[in-house]
Amino acid sequence: MNHFHQKHILDMASLSEQEIDYIINTAKTLKDISERPIKKVPTLRGKSIVHFFHEPSTRTRTSFEIAAKRMSADTFSISASTSSMTKGETLLDTVNTLQAMNPDIIVMRHSESGAPHFVSRHLNASVINAGDGMHAHPTQCLLDLMTVHEALGKINGLKLSIIGDIFHSRVARSNIVGFTKMGATVTVTAPCTMIPHGIDKLGARVAKTLEEAVSDADVVMALRIQKERQSNFFFPTEREYASFYGLTYERLKSMNKNAFIMHPGPINRGVELSSDIADCPESLIMKQVTNGVAIRMALLYLLMGGTRNAHSN
Amino acid sequence: MNHFHQKHILDMASLSEQEIDYIINTAKTLKDISERPIKKVPTLRGKSIVHFFHEPSTRTRTSFEIAAKRMSADTFSISASTSSMTKGETLLDTVNTLQAMNPDIIVMRHSESGAPHFVSRHLNASVINAGDGMHAHPTQCLLDLMTVHEALGKINGLKLSIIGDIFHSRVARSNIVGFTKMGATVTVTAPCTMIPHGIDKLGARVAKTLEEAVSDADVVMALRIQKERQSNFFFPTEREYASFYGLTYERLKSMNKNAFIMHPGPINRGVELSSDIADCPESLIMKQVTNGVAIRMALLYLLMGGTRNAHSN
Amino acid sequence: MNHFHQKHILDMASLSEQEIDYIINTAKTLKDISERPIKKVPTLRGKSIVHFFHEPSTRTRTSFEIAAKRMSADTFSISASTSSMTKGETLLDTVNTLQAMNPDIIVMRHSESGAPHFVSRHLNASVINAGDGMHAHPTQCLLDLMTVHEALGKINGLKLSIIGDIFHSRVARSNIVGFTKMGATVTVTAPCTMIPHGIDKLGARVAKTLEEAVSDADVVMALRIQKERQSNFFFPTEREYASFYGLTYERLKSMNKNAFIMHPGPINRGVELSSDIADCPESLIMKQVTNGVAIRMALLYLLMGGTRNAHSN
Repeated sequence: MNHFHQKHILDMASLSEQEIDYIINTAKTLKDISERPIKKVPTLRGKSIVHFFHEPSTRTRTSFEIAAKRMSADTFSISASTSSMTKGETLLDTVNTLQAMNPDIIVMRHSESGAPHFVSRHLNASVINAGDGMHAHPTQCLLDLMTVHEALGKINGLKLSIIGDIFHSRVARSNIVGFTKMGATVTVTAPCTMIPHGIDKLGARVAKTLEEAVSDADVVMALRIQKERQSNFFFPTEREYASFYGLTYERLKSMNKNAFIMHPGPINRGVELSSDIADCPESLIMKQVTNGVAIRMALLYLLMGGTRNAHSN
Repeated sequence: MNHFHQKHILDMASLSEQEIDYIINTAKTLKDISERPIKKVPTLRGKSIVHFFHEPSTRTRTSFEIAAKRMSADTFSISASTSSMTKGETLLDTVNTLQAMNPDIIVMRHSESGAPHFVSRHLNASVINAGDGMHAHPTQCLLDLMTVHEALGKINGLKLSIIGDIFHSRVARSNIVGFTKMGATVTVTAPCTMIPHGIDKLGARVAKTLEEAVSDADVVMALRIQKERQSNFFFPTEREYASFYGLTYERLKSMNKNAFIMHPGPINRGVELSSDIADCPESLIMKQVTNGVAIRMALLYLLMGGTRNAHSN
Repeated sequence: MNHFHQKHILDMASLSEQEIDYIINTAKTLKDISERPIKKVPTLRGKSIVHFFHEPSTRTRTSFEIAAKRMSADTFSISASTSSMTKGETLLDTVNTLQAMNPDIIVMRHSESGAPHFVSRHLNASVINAGDGMHAHPTQCLLDLMTVHEALGKINGLKLSIIGDIFHSRVARSNIVGFTKMGATVTVTAPCTMIPHGIDKLGARVAKTLEEAVSDADVVMALRIQKERQSNFFFPTEREYASFYGLTYERLKSMNKNAFIMHPGPINRGVELSSDIADCPESLIMKQVTNGVAIRMALLYLLMGGTRNAHSN
């Protein structure tokens, strides 16, 4: 592959195995920019990137902003609360208005599944989905793939287990699609109220117990219990959730000596993960954050026509 | 004219015909910067521009930020909710404090009419009024003039009709002043509760019906019905407003075959404009947004001492 | 002193007399950058500075942002309301996540005293305390020291009086520590409910009346009455406070002919200071704001390894 041909990054299903490889390899070559004394290359100078976040986010937005500025792009931030949409404007009008200002890329988070796809059909600018409803979060999956590849040297043939609120999780959905596409086996487990009907059609196996999910996994990924979404009583109490599905270092070690631990953040310490496990040697959590910047640099770069070996200077 | 001598951009009344021409012509030469692969010129490198928005705004603030960054200026954003004014500071203290940090330009939106004028009398920095109360929105008028000039090749002798809530609209007031100054005839129409007493003194003729306003207009500008300001019941219902004053493509075509359509945004689709008209071939709405960036680039440039032909590189 | 060896700026107690001198002298050499037509040097190009403000602030945050951009650093802003901490993340997780994105400096304001110290023990990045609880505000003290030094040519041997809510004031605490360290005598006065027990252990003398505090002072610093913190009724009314402790130009002149006036802002005009005094010739208030940018430029520069004479170009 000599060139990246996608115009938008909307979900993992739209990317080929080759393209995913190409993105990850590009990210690996860009990663060291963030470790230099001067963390900046002029590659995207004069490009305009709009961060349009219709849901609050610190880490994803900050990660995209850091990525953009390290590539020397100009960034513009629009949040739900300040946007004209609060004045009753439609999503399409908001985005058309942005379009008329000639941005190159719109990075978009939205509470409605499919909103970035809808928007992408009407724009000249490239759209990157930074999370839409319960549907997809492709840049999270790409950074997770990159992190696993760095830690284990491959994806193909590995076993990934995802523990937690699969039902509400766009991270889970994108990772099931992305990891199975790259040849991994994905197992999910959670209280049955949090396992959506038909999740096997995305390629995941459902384990009945934590032990069954964890014991032969190469990587265990815990999901955040999103307290703000628990109004519908998907489980009795956080304490009960933790006692059945919370990972402690002792419990993990008793089930599996070598598994790596991942989490998309932010962590509820003492609920889905104990403190000792969040900071244990097998934890890849901080590496995920670091790789997030590199993946986003790679995507901005490739969408702007970059090729894998021509960016650094 | 070889040089632009205004220090501030406060309202259309303060600008001469020649100056307005000069701004529009400068904007036309700067417009193509936004269409280049590298949308950035170093012209305003090292200039500090403060965006001080005491009312929420996405499109105007974003337009100014994009304009500033495409000219390589540094931008600083202060909103009402984060400002010390919430701690009881006076407007003058807030602005004096900003002044002490040596900004070059303060772009200011404020809910009180006249606030930018007051501030401009106390500052070394230039002030651009980005909308004050129900008084003026000169950058909107300038972008509207530029858009009409591009579409029709002239302003002088044209007929502009403005439909909607003239009473609350600083866009209407600035456009009445600006278009009549440039030789156009301006007609307004709306339910009589929305026509302010004495509007004819600004130079506008009042039409009794939509048909009378539209039938011989070269350009029809619909204003946003600002639902958030309708607590005082200026009209019975949105539906009734739309039935008398809302523009549909069919209604427009039945009254006038060739008129162009404008709207300052954001649009309430189905109230002041139907969807088919917002996106019709005669619609200049997206061009207004695009020209907004160019006009703001021109103003920043001219206030910083630029002359019309020396900016591009 | 040829080099600055501190990694963090957490409070005045951690800085030596020599280091304070070095910072102020560096700030003086950087100050003129803000008065040039091109207010920007490339010194910190490619450095990433995160402004993490867990309490609202306009002036301090804006001052830091202007300082950073005039040194060509990239800035990233995270506020309390947008941060993941609203999703229940711990402070340490938030900051570790930031750390994983490789910032060079985290500028931090926090409602809890000691938060920046805690954070600094876990980070590779440098931490600048931009105000923590009722504890410290070292950059305010440094800019006050610089301002007094500019106005009077020295600190050693001077008499500083601080009037107002000492109890809640991190500005007062940092200034007591900083000015006494540099050889000044610090006197405080206020209604007795606002004088914290043991303030003399920080090095301040308590005066019983305004007259006693002001009459032989070289510099009188009024503190803001923070109305938002007066729910506990530290004094009967603002009017009563003003009648006993408010400074008017007439009252000041009757007590002391030559004292300079300072205030950390934002001012409550008519409460702690009258309008005639805020703008009088002896007022250093606007100079404090200007020097704030210079001090913050100096700190960013020195923490990134700069030496006093190598920055300008």
